[in-house]
Amino acid sequence: VEAGEAPAALVMAYDEASLLATLRAAIPRFDEPLGIGDDAAILDGHVLTTDMLVEDIDFTSAIPIEFVAAKSLAVNLSDLAAMGARPRAFLLSLGLSPSARSQFDRFVAGIAGAAARYEVGLIGGDLSAAEKLIISITAIGTAPERPLLRSGARRGDRLFVSRALGGSVAGLRLLQNGWRISTTGVVTPPAAFDYGVREVATAAMLRHVAPEPECELGPKLATMPEVSACIDISDGLSIDLARLCEASGVGAVIDVERLPPLPGLPETARALGVAVEAAVLHGGEEYALLFTSTLRESELSQRCGRPVFSIGRITERPGVFIDRDGTEEPLEAKGFDHFRA
Amino acid sequence: VEAGEAPAALVMAYDEASLLATLRAAIPRFDEPLGIGDDAAILDGHVLTTDMLVEDIDFTSAIPIEFVAAKSLAVNLSDLAAMGARPRAFLLSLGLSPSARSQFDRFVAGIAGAAARYEVGLIGGDLSAAEKLIISITAIGTAPERPLLRSGARRGDRLFVSRALGGSVAGLRLLQNGWRISTTGVVTPPAAFDYGVREVATAAMLRHVAPEPECELGPKLATMPEVSACIDISDGLSIDLARLCEASGVGAVIDVERLPPLPGLPETARALGVAVEAAVLHGGEEYALLFTSTLRESELSQRCGRPVFSIGRITERPGVFIDRDGTEEPLEAKGFDHFRA
Repeated sequence: VEAGEAPAALVMAYDEASLLATLRAAIPRFDEPLGIGDDAAILDGHVLTTDMLVEDIDFTSAIPIEFVAAKSLAVNLSDLAAMGARPRAFLLSLGLSPSARSQFDRFVAGIAGAAARYEVGLIGGDLSAAEKLIISITAIGTAPERPLLRSGARRGDRLFVSRALGGSVAGLRLLQNGWRISTTGVVTPPAAFDYGVREVATAAMLRHVAPEPECELGPKLATMPEVSACIDISDGLSIDLARLCEASGVGAVIDVERLPPLPGLPETARALGVAVEAAVLHGGEEYALLFTSTLRESELSQRCGRPVFSIGRITERPGVFIDRDGTEEPLEAKGFDHFRA
Repeated sequence: VEAGEAPAALVMAYDEASLLATLRAAIPRFDEPLGIGDDAAILDGHVLTTDMLVEDIDFTSAIPIEFVAAKSLAVNLSDLAAMGARPRAFLLSLGLSPSARSQFDRFVAGIAGAAARYEVGLIGGDLSAAEKLIISITAIGTAPERPLLRSGARRGDRLFVSRALGGSVAGLRLLQNGWRISTTGVVTPPAAFDYGVREVATAAMLRHVAPEPECELGPKLATMPEVSACIDISDGLSIDLARLCEASGVGAVIDVERLPPLPGLPETARALGVAVEAAVLHGGEEYALLFTSTLRESELSQRCGRPVFSIGRITERPGVFIDRDGTEEPLEAKGFDHFRA
């Protein structure tokens, strides 16, 4: 794999989507107004979402198990945040491998820390034996009065991301290249690296192993009628934007100049072996929010009480394009798919 | 393993309980009045439960995948039924092994059939790749006005089961002995068997591969103030009764004469290689309801519109005992634990 290219497992295929479509077609939703298709389902004031993480598919033993545990909760809370829901409680099912059993106290410490931080209670669970560690979480949030959906983007809206991108896939690349990170956030490079590189490497690895769901921002955006659509970037900006556009029946143009890379990443990219633009456009597991609004960047940042980044605009023309010096090119939707490898 | 003895995986140990206790102690439940400990959690009018099934731990490829799929939903609905909740919706996470992917349409047909039968909608899910098939389901029900809990049993209450027992573990034993069942319910013995035996074998295998949750009975019991406590028999009568007694701070005496075995099982036990009393007392995966009430069997059966079986009584003395011809012996709690093998 060429330095900076997405690893094989991160190349998108539509296989997961087609399997999900088969399920959706076969099983009716009965009385639900919303269901699979947005980041979470809404049921009588509750927002529900579920995610399963499997060892050696979704994570490896290169990541300390405390991080894996906390991240497994965080990715679910990110789905709630994308709909503007405040997290409330979760259910946890574990398939425990022998090695995971021996590290069970560390797993518990990791997930308990995340639960305390986001104030979500554990209300149920199931344990099973397994050959590989399997973590399946269902998170429940309180639905806002006006949930954020993927389908609300309109022509002329500005396109926003909630924070700088590219760090997670850069951190994954570093892990694959032999870098390690301790539970206290101390990184160990496989060889001698200068201090400046190490600082960015730490930030990138933390983005990957300890992503922060936008639990404050999501509910805040849901209170603003000027925010029209939202999704979290779990599989990559290009693919998640394509999903938002498809759900809204619109297109989008990204201004390449406005894309915010993880600070320091462009300057250290060569040393770290990361292709910055690909990391920003296609890197998964960011858990930033991608949303649309009629508001300007300055006004929206002020209302959010923190910076958010306008990266382009919504168009009537379908499809996602990228504007490089005034020339618009189609942007291929690449991202994570479990069934391509 | 002696014929009729519980297989190794069905012997109870308290390891799963201690792992769960570690989790519960570490992660607060915040504002929940009820949580882990009953069959499901209650949250603002919803009842939630989750179960994970792992290939070669919880089921094998000897069972057609349509049955596995339907059963994975049924076991969750049984937890809802045990609290008196009507099923409403579910979320489904799958770790798909290569062989499961090739049988995906059959899996979908199985779970879609169960969803339609119990009128539960699929409202969310996640797919991952995995080496073995993993099925993780969270089911959501509508909480009754007065949810059934494990903790309500009182001295003098009668103890009931909702149907005949022993079939599921007998069916499992047959599968282990080479019997097979098709998706249409046709059984194939490993050798020549007479017709009478085959009929009971079919009933037993269906109990194991296609258990029926008590989705009608549970909500009905919840409307009766005379019903004091309830649990579903997922791990075995002896262990689930011990749990009910512990939660209620009481004991129980089972009258061995009143235990209802699967019809025909005693007569065919020797031919099928099943120890009937052990199967009835300790066999898991029954998904019958075990409940307590001040009402008599005839009165309760009439109110339920179907037979239910009084099998003993609740005592002030703690512990579970079995009455054989007037002599009470302690009943060892045996059942299923994933971590004992």
